[in-house]
Amino acid sequence: MNRRRRIYEGKAKILYEGPEPGTLIQHFKDDATAFNNQKHALIEGKGVLNNRISEYMFTNLEAIGIPTHFIRRLNMREQLVRSVEIVPVEVVVRNVAAGSICKRLGLEEGTPLPRSIIEFYYKADELNDPMVTEEHITAFGWATPQEIDDMISMTQRVNDFLSGLFLGVGIRLVDFKLEFGRQYDNDMVRLIVADEISPDGCRLWDIQSQEKLDKDRFRRDLGDLIEAYQEVARRLGILVENEQGKHQGPILVRSS
Amino acid sequence: MNRRRRIYEGKAKILYEGPEPGTLIQHFKDDATAFNNQKHALIEGKGVLNNRISEYMFTNLEAIGIPTHFIRRLNMREQLVRSVEIVPVEVVVRNVAAGSICKRLGLEEGTPLPRSIIEFYYKADELNDPMVTEEHITAFGWATPQEIDDMISMTQRVNDFLSGLFLGVGIRLVDFKLEFGRQYDNDMVRLIVADEISPDGCRLWDIQSQEKLDKDRFRRDLGDLIEAYQEVARRLGILVENEQGKHQGPILVRSS
Repeated sequence: MNRRRRIYEGKAKILYEGPEPGTLIQHFKDDATAFNNQKHALIEGKGVLNNRISEYMFTNLEAIGIPTHFIRRLNMREQLVRSVEIVPVEVVVRNVAAGSICKRLGLEEGTPLPRSIIEFYYKADELNDPMVTEEHITAFGWATPQEIDDMISMTQRVNDFLSGLFLGVGIRLVDFKLEFGRQYDNDMVRLIVADEISPDGCRLWDIQSQEKLDKDRFRRDLGDLIEAYQEVARRLGILVENEQGKHQGPILVRSS
Repeated sequence: MNRRRRIYEGKAKILYEGPEPGTLIQHFKDDATAFNNQKHALIEGKGVLNNRISEYMFTNLEAIGIPTHFIRRLNMREQLVRSVEIVPVEVVVRNVAAGSICKRLGLEEGTPLPRSIIEFYYKADELNDPMVTEEHITAFGWATPQEIDDMISMTQRVNDFLSGLFLGVGIRLVDFKLEFGRQYDNDMVRLIVADEISPDGCRLWDIQSQEKLDKDRFRRDLGDLIEAYQEVARRLGILVENEQGKHQGPILVRSS
């Protein structure tokens, strides 16, 4: 395992060469970072939790017909994924005002938005991931107009599904981030959801108590980050403790 | 209350004139019917449960931006709704094969479908609500092509949201029916979701046990219909027992 080739190392994950062409191994680290890496900590067990939660999310998205890079979980920290060319644009959906939009537009945190709002951010650490518009994206060739349309419609579907899923377990999906990748298959290319979906990239508030169950606990030094992620996994019926690697939560289609 | 004008009485609901123009009162009866009224029973408490469950569904659909006829619940059995012109077409979404599609296409119940399938049925008791195509709908003028497109896209959103919501409480949304109505507002007309969303018009299977939690318990003489509906309400956090009429389940936006 130590001899395999490292393709990329990010703040919270490492990508290794996969066992066959067109695949990669996505390894979840315990690193927590915020404010573009100015704040950093190791939080034991976060990688294991995010691996499981992201597996659960992607498996269910596939089940409702949204294509993703996820193939299968390999072990406590790793999953096999399709190799894609990452679109250098993060897609953010906001259902409630929180985080950067509050400062940008002078909104109080928790203000319901008139409707769900989709934003794009250019993936560039050296620029602090600036917000961009469709104009920028097409002008600089980061994605085509058709790809933007595809990202928007997939993102809206994911938002509807996840809003329902979290509501079912008493959690408000405040906002979240998606990344997309181009999968090349012979002469075809299609966009699929890539990266991860976990409390690292979502804002999740308990509906009754308004308690934050996401990475804001780290950003804002609220403590108990692992306990919050465990609570999210527990409510979703994901048994993370199980060392046999059995996924026993409710799931739309069991992976074969 | 007994003097108000009855506008329409259906198999499971009565519509009364509302307190102001453009509104109706939708009253949920305890009647259970199946096979186009050939089978009939009174099941005490069903109307109360469906009133609450449908309130919960429509409130949350409004919260994610899907327009509905629901205004507010009035009491244990009644809710205030917008008066609409009902489109005489039922829209059915199927995620898993069950019910009439099994017989029609020779599928075993429980077979996952290649993708979610939308079907239309012409609302006509005397014809046993026959399945129809977009050709029939436009040719006979039941809905315009634009209205069909609107119904399909709203139905897909409702399916994504409800699939997530039910998954969150350990239930598989197998299929369900929606009805739409035209709301006239000065010179404008728009389609909104009407009727009800309850276990009467959904197939809901417990994900672990595969137990049916819907009207198939009545259709197939499985018994314990009320217990199944109560279980659905309980998992969604809807407190039906509360005589004060407080809705205390998790909800995206509390009604004002």
